Amino acid sequence: MDHLDLMRQLRIPAETKILLWVMDGLGGLPLETGGKTELEAAHTPNLDELARRSVAGLSAPIAPGITPGSGPSHLALFGYDPLAWDLGRGVMEVLGIDFPLEDADVAVRGNFCTVDEAGLITDRRAGRISTEKSTELCRLLQQIRVPGVEAFVLPVREHRFALVFRGAGLDPHIADTDPQAVGKAPLAVRATSPQAQPAAGLVTAWLEQAYRVLAPYHPANSLLLRGFSRDPGLPKMAEVYGLKAAAVASYPMYRGLAKLVGMDVLSTGPTFADEVATVEQNWKDYDFFYLHLKYTDSRGEDGDFDAKVKVIEQADAMLPRLLALKPDVLIISGDHSSPARLKGHSWHPVPTLLYSEVCGVDSVSVFSERACAGGALGVLPAVDLMPLAMANAGRLAKFGA
Amino acid sequence: MDHLDLMRQLRIPAETKILLWVMDGLGGLPLETGGKTELEAAHTPNLDELARRSVAGLSAPIAPGITPGSGPSHLALFGYDPLAWDLGRGVMEVLGIDFPLEDADVAVRGNFCTVDEAGLITDRRAGRISTEKSTELCRLLQQIRVPGVEAFVLPVREHRFALVFRGAGLDPHIADTDPQAVGKAPLAVRATSPQAQPAAGLVTAWLEQAYRVLAPYHPANSLLLRGFSRDPGLPKMAEVYGLKAAAVASYPMYRGLAKLVGMDVLSTGPTFADEVATVEQNWKDYDFFYLHLKYTDSRGEDGDFDAKVKVIEQADAMLPRLLALKPDVLIISGDHSSPARLKGHSWHPVPTLLYSEVCGVDSVSVFSERACAGGALGVLPAVDLMPLAMANAGRLAKFGA
Repeated sequence: MDHLDLMRQLRIPAETKILLWVMDGLGGLPLETGGKTELEAAHTPNLDELARRSVAGLSAPIAPGITPGSGPSHLALFGYDPLAWDLGRGVMEVLGIDFPLEDADVAVRGNFCTVDEAGLITDRRAGRISTEKSTELCRLLQQIRVPGVEAFVLPVREHRFALVFRGAGLDPHIADTDPQAVGKAPLAVRATSPQAQPAAGLVTAWLEQAYRVLAPYHPANSLLLRGFSRDPGLPKMAEVYGLKAAAVASYPMYRGLAKLVGMDVLSTGPTFADEVATVEQNWKDYDFFYLHLKYTDSRGEDGDFDAKVKVIEQADAMLPRLLALKPDVLIISGDHSSPARLKGHSWHPVPTLLYSEVCGVDSVSVFSERACAGGALGVLPAVDLMPLAMANAGRLAKFGA
Repeated sequence: MDHLDLMRQLRIPAETKILLWVMDGLGGLPLETGGKTELEAAHTPNLDELARRSVAGLSAPIAPGITPGSGPSHLALFGYDPLAWDLGRGVMEVLGIDFPLEDADVAVRGNFCTVDEAGLITDRRAGRISTEKSTELCRLLQQIRVPGVEAFVLPVREHRFALVFRGAGLDPHIADTDPQAVGKAPLAVRATSPQAQPAAGLVTAWLEQAYRVLAPYHPANSLLLRGFSRDPGLPKMAEVYGLKAAAVASYPMYRGLAKLVGMDVLSTGPTFADEVATVEQNWKDYDFFYLHLKYTDSRGEDGDFDAKVKVIEQADAMLPRLLALKPDVLIISGDHSSPARLKGHSWHPVPTLLYSEVCGVDSVSVFSERACAGGALGVLPAVDLMPLAMANAGRLAKFGA
């Protein structure tokens, strides 16, 4: 019996509310051995006070040593085994630009690239052309017509774009055309399963026209495709947990991830204060809220330790407004660590608090990596947080007699 | 290779003794945030002294957030994956009344219920009739004869009884007749696999007579059946661990669970002092003792914090007698938590001590939920305690070269 089946079997209705606050990339590292992490350096009186009433631990996104992307790390937080459910590169790219992906669409990530006169790749990123230039080229490619399929060409950033094929019976089992090396030609489209043959034919037809369209636009005179994929058909949170769930996230990718598991995505503004106001305004209408704070990750990726500290302090100042809503269960965690020192995602497990009136006891009185390591949750797979939230919310029956 | 295969492969003989002391429902919660748990409130000088010589941790019965029944939580303590081995409701009910269940018997749990003139259920519990009344009705039902099968009708408590079918080739894949709702009729007997067709026919024949017998006995004028099941055929402890194992438990259900894994069930008296005396008297004859203290759970289920504290203090006072036996390995844990605050089982991991001369070191010097959270065992799946006991008892060889 898997995790989700256990939830389906044991869930019972209750009039309780769960708030999952994800501070993206929350976990950090000291800049020097012996120093403080971002979270330790930050002044966080509200989080520390909550730590005294919560159980604490370190949430491990995927597996020890594994640095996750945002897709799998969020699936784990939502209670879905991130090693069992594959979010393809194409789907993630499309989620990141708020495109209304339909169940049967095949999405793929595109890169503009440079090829020489022999058709061999000289730059896999086309000199990182501007987003403006890339948007123009996408508009040209959007003119291509292939009978039997509709293609959406969606600019992302610089040389990156997303491509969505819509049509009857398309199958995403198609290999990348990107040979992942310069000096080679883009690969021919190849189906990796028999039922993808028709789709591979349509993509080939589209590509032949695309190569002709781009030929005059050096350095972006060709393109490469990676990660043909489709909405993986994740079970929805209402069906698994019996929760009416809402997502509050100002960044498109996180809204898209929430939509994949069936959350209602609420409109909100660009700041975290906007997001908190959105939670407040919709509080009575949902059982579960996923609240996403992006900037802890952004400043970590920038390598800006002090700016990340400041984001954490601003987040701390918002906590009283969330507590005033009196959530029955409040989880504060991150999808992964993004230490300024590493300027990117990392594998380190993430400081985590779980508060409810019946959460249990431990000795943690500070919210930090170091303190949480001694908490009652121990080092906990992120995928186990949702079952714990359900239990603390009085939403799970006993297993066995 | 699963857990049990690893034990089978690595076990070696030794002249050592393991004592697993299960304080049922040991884990607790403060009555108010910031307060003490039952175990923290109790004066436990002997357990605290043992904590200083032990490694400590929190034992997680099934999975995070999952509140276990006594069956699965005990399987885990005995080292059997509780999600892989299904103890049906019928089997558990029969274990609880000390009935000598045979391997091929099909057991099911019965409820007397009330039906109206149209045959629709008006009370799924027949007004919770007295155990006395229920015992009388069971005696009437015991008169029913169906060729090809013997049926034992065993009173349990109030409206609940157990029913055991004994005969050649009976298969338990039969759906409940309990529709789990009032206003509906009891469901017809239905086999859920083809090989259960004959058994379903016999149960139907039995039920037709039973409905006629009960008709005059309003409010107990009908019955419902749930959880058709059979001894799951668990591997025995002698075969898995090479241990000659004994169980000392004053409550029938725990004796029954021990019998399922092949322990010798020793006769003992009703008090915990009786149980300790039984361990003492039989100490030289077994390698492994499972000692069960029921009352920590009972007082937790009553919601009586102070009484649970007192049971823990009484248990503490018995510890010197157990230590005087000089077990090579002593584990003290619970099968699950039963906080007085929740008046029932809960999902919280259970404070646990493992003592041996080579158990390792940690900083825990008090036996409590809070202190054990910082112990060397961490948050440990309960199913891992037996392998640890085996290792500490010098009963496991090296894995690999």
